[in-house]
Amino acid sequence: MVESVTTTAAGRRPARCDDGAVERRYVLTLGCPDRTGIVARLSTVLAEAGATIVEASYHADESSGWFFTRQVVLAASVAASAEQLRTRFAAVAAELGPETEWTLHDTDERKRVVLLVSREPHCLRDLLGRAADGELPAEVVAVVGNHQDLEPLTAAHGVPFHHVPFPADPAERGPAFARVRELVDAHDPHAVVLARFMQVLPAELCEHWAGRALNIHHSFLPSFVGARPYHQAFARGVKLVGATCHYVTAELDAGPIVEQDVIRVDHGDSPADMVRQGRDIERLVLSRGLRWHLEDRVLVHGGTTVVFT
Amino acid sequence: MVESVTTTAAGRRPARCDDGAVERRYVLTLGCPDRTGIVARLSTVLAEAGATIVEASYHADESSGWFFTRQVVLAASVAASAEQLRTRFAAVAAELGPETEWTLHDTDERKRVVLLVSREPHCLRDLLGRAADGELPAEVVAVVGNHQDLEPLTAAHGVPFHHVPFPADPAERGPAFARVRELVDAHDPHAVVLARFMQVLPAELCEHWAGRALNIHHSFLPSFVGARPYHQAFARGVKLVGATCHYVTAELDAGPIVEQDVIRVDHGDSPADMVRQGRDIERLVLSRGLRWHLEDRVLVHGGTTVVFT
Amino acid sequence: MVESVTTTAAGRRPARCDDGAVERRYVLTLGCPDRTGIVARLSTVLAEAGATIVEASYHADESSGWFFTRQVVLAASVAASAEQLRTRFAAVAAELGPETEWTLHDTDERKRVVLLVSREPHCLRDLLGRAADGELPAEVVAVVGNHQDLEPLTAAHGVPFHHVPFPADPAERGPAFARVRELVDAHDPHAVVLARFMQVLPAELCEHWAGRALNIHHSFLPSFVGARPYHQAFARGVKLVGATCHYVTAELDAGPIVEQDVIRVDHGDSPADMVRQGRDIERLVLSRGLRWHLEDRVLVHGGTTVVFT
Amino acid sequence: MVESVTTTAAGRRPARCDDGAVERRYVLTLGCPDRTGIVARLSTVLAEAGATIVEASYHADESSGWFFTRQVVLAASVAASAEQLRTRFAAVAAELGPETEWTLHDTDERKRVVLLVSREPHCLRDLLGRAADGELPAEVVAVVGNHQDLEPLTAAHGVPFHHVPFPADPAERGPAFARVRELVDAHDPHAVVLARFMQVLPAELCEHWAGRALNIHHSFLPSFVGARPYHQAFARGVKLVGATCHYVTAELDAGPIVEQDVIRVDHGDSPADMVRQGRDIERLVLSRGLRWHLEDRVLVHGGTTVVFT
Repeated sequence: MVESVTTTAAGRRPARCDDGAVERRYVLTLGCPDRTGIVARLSTVLAEAGATIVEASYHADESSGWFFTRQVVLAASVAASAEQLRTRFAAVAAELGPETEWTLHDTDERKRVVLLVSREPHCLRDLLGRAADGELPAEVVAVVGNHQDLEPLTAAHGVPFHHVPFPADPAERGPAFARVRELVDAHDPHAVVLARFMQVLPAELCEHWAGRALNIHHSFLPSFVGARPYHQAFARGVKLVGATCHYVTAELDAGPIVEQDVIRVDHGDSPADMVRQGRDIERLVLSRGLRWHLEDRVLVHGGTTVVFT
Repeated sequence: MVESVTTTAAGRRPARCDDGAVERRYVLTLGCPDRTGIVARLSTVLAEAGATIVEASYHADESSGWFFTRQVVLAASVAASAEQLRTRFAAVAAELGPETEWTLHDTDERKRVVLLVSREPHCLRDLLGRAADGELPAEVVAVVGNHQDLEPLTAAHGVPFHHVPFPADPAERGPAFARVRELVDAHDPHAVVLARFMQVLPAELCEHWAGRALNIHHSFLPSFVGARPYHQAFARGVKLVGATCHYVTAELDAGPIVEQDVIRVDHGDSPADMVRQGRDIERLVLSRGLRWHLEDRVLVHGGTTVVFT
Repeated sequence: MVESVTTTAAGRRPARCDDGAVERRYVLTLGCPDRTGIVARLSTVLAEAGATIVEASYHADESSGWFFTRQVVLAASVAASAEQLRTRFAAVAAELGPETEWTLHDTDERKRVVLLVSREPHCLRDLLGRAADGELPAEVVAVVGNHQDLEPLTAAHGVPFHHVPFPADPAERGPAFARVRELVDAHDPHAVVLARFMQVLPAELCEHWAGRALNIHHSFLPSFVGARPYHQAFARGVKLVGATCHYVTAELDAGPIVEQDVIRVDHGDSPADMVRQGRDIERLVLSRGLRWHLEDRVLVHGGTTVVFT
Repeated sequence: MVESVTTTAAGRRPARCDDGAVERRYVLTLGCPDRTGIVARLSTVLAEAGATIVEASYHADESSGWFFTRQVVLAASVAASAEQLRTRFAAVAAELGPETEWTLHDTDERKRVVLLVSREPHCLRDLLGRAADGELPAEVVAVVGNHQDLEPLTAAHGVPFHHVPFPADPAERGPAFARVRELVDAHDPHAVVLARFMQVLPAELCEHWAGRALNIHHSFLPSFVGARPYHQAFARGVKLVGATCHYVTAELDAGPIVEQDVIRVDHGDSPADMVRQGRDIERLVLSRGLRWHLEDRVLVHGGTTVVFT
C-alpha cells in the first residue's frame, strides 16, 4: 500500500521558465474547505498515475478554514494525458465539495497575456523585454492603449497594438471599454495586465476578468489609494514609497494583493524624484506578480492571496 | 575676507554618542523661510567664532519655501560659551524673520528621556538596554506605566517607575493624564516616548509636548491607523508589515513621520506571527527615531520632517 | 485505504513559541538520500499514529541528492508517547539507509542554551531579553565569559555566570577551553551560542559541539573573514555591511550559514559608525538564527543549511 | 561682506535628468587634501559669479584627510560662461595644491556612453530602454560586442553595433582589445560600461579608461570574485545574493565600488534561480551606478568612492 504512493516523493526539481529546455510539466492547484484527508486523496491520485512530483506546497488557513495546494509533476512520468488527469481530479474535486476550485495546467500550452497601457512606457517596456528574453512563461499577444504613444515600442517587439481612444468624459467611456473587452477577449488570455493603464475598469469588466486582471498600483496599498499616490506620499512625508500588484476588483485598489515592495526616500526627494525611483519598484513588483500568476503560484480566497513561491 | 571664514571648512569628524570619549560639541539647528544669504550669514557667525564645523547639512524645500540646516561644531574650537553663541544666533534669527526657529544644544548637557509604557516590554527593554550600553545620547530619567507589569524591568535598570492606574472608562481618564503630565514635566524631558503606551493622549497634552512626544505605531502609516494594526494587515493580505515612529499630534497617528521600516510576511503568517516579527521592526524604528531626535537631526515643518542622517 | 492517512491533512496551526499557551507538539526532522517513497512512508507512520500535522515542509536538493523534511504534529492527537513515536521512526530511518539522520523533539522538554561571551553586551543583552519575554523557545541556563564585564548583566536576569580567564598567549589557552567545555557540557545544552565571544574555538571543540554551536560573525560572509570586519569593510568601501549566523566548524568563519542580513552604509560612515549600525543587524541575525535552530527548522548537510521558515 | 555671498544660499532645486525641461546647470566637483577655508573659497567664487546653488554636498574623510564637494548651480544665474567659470576654478584649484582634482560640467553638453556587451541581453536592454525613456542623462552612442547576438536589440534602439570577435585563446586577444579601444575612443565617451561583457580588460585599457569604465559584477563584492559567482554563492550556501557596480581597475573585481544591493534567496533556489533573480539586482545596481556617475555624483579617492546621492 505504501508502495503505491512511493512515486509521489521524488525529488523536487526546478520548474522555472528560464532554464532553457524545461521538461513538460502539469501544474495542479486546488483550494477547498479544509478537512482531513485532502493531501492523502490528492497524493494517491497522483501516485496512481505514476507522477513524479517536482514541487509541492500546502497551506491551511485557520481563519478562513480553507485549504490550498499546488503540485507540479513531470508530464513524462504520468501514464495519462492532461485531459485524463483532469477527469480524475474533477472526480476528486466533486468529493471535496461544491466550493472546491482547481486547475490543471499543461506547460506545453503556452499562456497568453494582453497588456493594457496608456502613455507611460516603463512597465510595458519591462514586460515586453522580459517576454523577449524568456523571463516570462507566456507570450504577449496584444497591447491595447487608450493613446497611441506606445505603438512604436510595441511594434518594435513584434506585438500587435490596438488603439482605443477614450472620451474625456468618464460617463461616455462605455463603448471604449466595450471595444477593449472585445479586443482582449479575442485572445482568451490567461492574464490581462493593467500596465499603468490609468483607467478605472467598470465593475462588470472587473467581474468578467475576475482572477485574471492584474494591476500595478504605484503605492504601498492600502496607503494612498487612487490618483497621484507619489504626491500623496510626499505630502504625508513617508520615508518609504512602494508599489502593489493586485487583482482588479470593482472596489478601487482594493483587490487581493499579489506582491508589494518598497524603496527608501527622504526629505530631499521631490514628488518627481519619487516618481522616478518608484518606477523601478513598479517594474519589479509587476513582473514578479505576473510571473507568479502565470506559473499558477497565486491562489485567491476571500480578499487575499496565497502565493507559493 | 576669505580667511575670515576659513575655520568653517575643517573636516567633519564623527560626533556620535557611542564613540567613547567624544569631544564636546555645539549642535545648531535652524529653520526659516528660504531666501538668499542664509548659509553665508550663519557661516560667518560660526567663522567669526572660530568654529570648527564637523557636520553640516542643508535642505531647502521647494514646495514649502522653507530652509533647514544643522551644523555641529567642536566646542573647544569656539572662542565663546554656548550662551554667548546663543546670543549671537538670536540676533541672526531676528534678522531672518519672526518665523525662524532655531536651537543650539551643548552636548555636555545630557538629555533626559521619559518613557510611557503599558504592559508590553519589548520597546521599553530595548531602550533601557541601549541607554545602559551608551547607544542613546540621553539618560532615561523615569518610566510611567498605566499598569505595574513593567516595574521590575524598569527597576532592574535603576530607573524610577511611576504607576498611574487608568480607569476603564475613557471619559474618566482626565485625572490620570494630569498625573502623567505632572510626573513627566517634573523632569523637563527632551523626549517623551510612548513606548507602546496604548493610550491616546488628549489634545492638550499633545499640544503641551508638541515636538517632544514620540510614538511608535505598529504599522506602516498611513496604512492601518488605530487599533490592532497587525490584525488589519492580516485581513487586508499585505505582503509587508511595518512600523512608524512619529511625533504625537492631536489627530491619531497623523503626526510628522520620523522613521519607518518594513519586514516581509506571507500567507503562512498569522496575526500572532506578524505581532512577533513586527516587534523587531518596532524596536529598530523607535530606537533610530529617538536617537535622531536626541541628536537634533529631526526638523519639523508643516506635517513632515527633515531628517539629517 | 485513503482513510487511513486522512488525519495527516488537518490544517496547519501556528506552533510558535510566543503564543502564550501553545499546545504540546512533536517536531520531526529527517534528512536522507533522496529516493521515491519517503514522504509516503513518513506520512503513513504519522497517519497510523493518528497525528494531526500542523506544519509540513519538504525539500529535495538536486545537487546533493538529499531529501529533507520537517513535520510538526499535535501531541494530543497522537495515540503514542514521544518515545513510542521515536521507536517507530527509528525503524523507518533504518529502512531509509544508514546515512539517515532524524530527530523527534517533544516541545514539553524545554531546550537549554549556554551563551559564551566576552566584553560586548549587545548580543547577550538581546538574547537574555528575548528569553525573558518568551521570544525564544528555550531557557538560557548559563553564561560563560572570558572577562567579568558581563557578569552583572547576566546576574540581573537570574542566570549563572561563569568567569574563565583566558591567557594572553593563544598557545596557552588549552586549559581555559577545557574549563569552558566542562562548564558548558554540564548543562548538555541544545545550543552553544558564541555571542561575540571573540575567541576561535579549537578544532576538537568545534567537532564536539558540531551542529549545536552557533556563531554571529559581524560581516556578510564570505566577505571579511576574521578580525575587525567592519574595518575591512570600511577599507574596501562597500555600500552595505552585514552579519552572518553560522554553525561553528574548525575552519574559521566557514561553517554552514543559517541566516544573514545587511544594512546600507555610505561614505559618511566611519568604522565606528559601522560598528554601531552593525550591532542592530547582529542582534537580528543571531536571534533569528538561534530561534530557527531551537525550533528544529535548520537542517545541515554538506557545508550548507536548509532552513524551513 | 556677508551680502557678497548671499547668492550662494538660494534654495536647492531638483536637477534630475527626467524632469522634462530641466534648466541648464553647471555641476562642479572637487577633491583635494582637506584644510581650513576650502568651502569658503569655493563659495566666494560662486557667489562672486552670482550663482544660485541648487545642490551642495560636502564630505571630509578623516582617514584619508581628503575633502570632497559637489555643487550644482543654475547656469542662468551665473554671469559667466562655463569656460570662464572653469578658468576661475582652475585658479582656485592651483591654490589648493597640485593634488586637487576638479571638474565642471555644463548640462547642455550631453554625455556619451559606450556599452561593451557579450551575449546576455538583460543589462543592455535595461540601459537602452532607460536611455530611450529619458531616465539616463546621456546618449548611448555605440555598443561593442564580442558576439553578434545583441546586434538586433541594439539596432532596434537606433544605436550602432560593432562586432569584434574574440579569439578563444586569451593570449591572442590583444588585437581584439585594440579594436575595441579604437571603437570606443572614437566617441570620447564619458562612460564605458561593461554591461556583462564577460572579458577581463588588459591592465593598460583599465589605466586608459580609469575613472570612466564601469563594470557590473554579479555578486556582493568582495564575496565571489571572478567567474560564476552565483554558483559560488550556491556552493557556499549564502542567504542573500547581490550585485556590485564598480570602476574597472587592473586587479579583477577590486575597483572602487559605486553601488551594491542584494536579494534574499533560500535553499530552494538553484544556481539557475539565483541567476534569474540576480538579473533584477544587476539591472538596478548598474543603472543606479551609471546614473550617479553621469550626474557627477561619484568622486573616487584611493580605492573607494564618495557618492553624493
